[in-house]
Amino acid sequence: MSFIDATLCASLKIIRALHEEENIFEEKGIGFGGDRSLNIDLIAEKIFIKALSDYGNILSEEAGFIDNGKDKKIIIDPIDGSYNVSNHIPYFGCSVYLENEAAVVVNLSNGDYFVKDKNGKKFDNLFRKPFAANYRHDVIIFEKAYKNPDIVQKLSNHGLKFRAPGALSLSLCYGEFAKAVIYKGEIREFDIAAAQFYNSECHWHFEDDLILMSPEKKDLEEVLSIIKE
Amino acid sequence: MSFIDATLCASLKIIRALHEEENIFEEKGIGFGGDRSLNIDLIAEKIFIKALSDYGNILSEEAGFIDNGKDKKIIIDPIDGSYNVSNHIPYFGCSVYLENEAAVVVNLSNGDYFVKDKNGKKFDNLFRKPFAANYRHDVIIFEKAYKNPDIVQKLSNHGLKFRAPGALSLSLCYGEFAKAVIYKGEIREFDIAAAQFYNSECHWHFEDDLILMSPEKKDLEEVLSIIKE
Repeated sequence: MSFIDATLCASLKIIRALHEEENIFEEKGIGFGGDRSLNIDLIAEKIFIKALSDYGNILSEEAGFIDNGKDKKIIIDPIDGSYNVSNHIPYFGCSVYLENEAAVVVNLSNGDYFVKDKNGKKFDNLFRKPFAANYRHDVIIFEKAYKNPDIVQKLSNHGLKFRAPGALSLSLCYGEFAKAVIYKGEIREFDIAAAQFYNSECHWHFEDDLILMSPEKKDLEEVLSIIKE
Repeated sequence: MSFIDATLCASLKIIRALHEEENIFEEKGIGFGGDRSLNIDLIAEKIFIKALSDYGNILSEEAGFIDNGKDKKIIIDPIDGSYNVSNHIPYFGCSVYLENEAAVVVNLSNGDYFVKDKNGKKFDNLFRKPFAANYRHDVIIFEKAYKNPDIVQKLSNHGLKFRAPGALSLSLCYGEFAKAVIYKGEIREFDIAAAQFYNSECHWHFEDDLILMSPEKKDLEEVLSIIKE
């Protein structure tokens, strides 16, 4: 099976686990990445490790590095947006990156997925065809807005609309349809590796604790200059 | 057909229209409610008017009041979260309220729906069973955060996490699984009537331009006292 198909099948198993497993939101300590681990995070990670260990060594948000004696590295965030899952806010996903080769990001709430490999990039849905249209690119997706009231104030001064949906890898993928994505906080490989590969043709700006991404260079420059005011 | 079934069928037709209609994001002027109308807003409204005119007179966000010579009134927001649809941010819905009798709010992105009538309330999904669990109620949903940097600052001072997903009627329904919902802006019947009926057993606080809702009284009081600081 291809790496992408193996990852999509694992994603379907995680959606199923959300329905079938018990006590999915029980706390299980702090993961390798530094966040609270819930039972569903560990269940999802186990599903990915089983499905993907043939394809490479694994660096995963909960367990850290798993040496499978392979040449390649896979970077996994088993559940991106754990707080959303556990509050039933329908925006959470998984993010899987096979270094330099393939990216898969799946919205586990509605089945949307973003894949890219040597054959190119594709936005599709596990369950049905997604709709396609001329998107308007007039909303900003701002991750960790709740920790950055100063940036919220600046965007507000300029009358810019933002959404803060709460799952970074998803937002960096959906960002191809929006005006821009802003993230300010600790930058971790798990959260961004797959999305960066998927949207590599978009415009990106990285600093210590800041990521900006935009489909259009002028939008990136506009938002960056506002943040720097 | 029951009012609820008629509304759910109309919702399915709107999901289909998203895929099949042309130029869905073309601007069509300003609707009765004061927001920009897109083609998809008008298409969705037409679907609802056709499906629901037998059940009552209609007050709808785009067209205003439609007198069908009935005793009852139906309040409709055909597309809640138009900016999300047109930026492909997967959080948009429709909100339909038959005064004092029934409420239907549908997430058109993933099929989740919230219904209530004399038989009680139900959270379900058009396409598959939604998952159920002991939600953690530790995230706030904050609608119009982008216009209220002062409240963002106060929540941040208290270390509270929020999400700002961008469709008020959906957020007031999903709020039954979260810590609280905050909205600050112009209050319009279209956006809140159905959700208020659906979550009538939750705790609500209304002021001129402020809505708070929470499943727990203590959470409502905590968030209100922070906003009033």
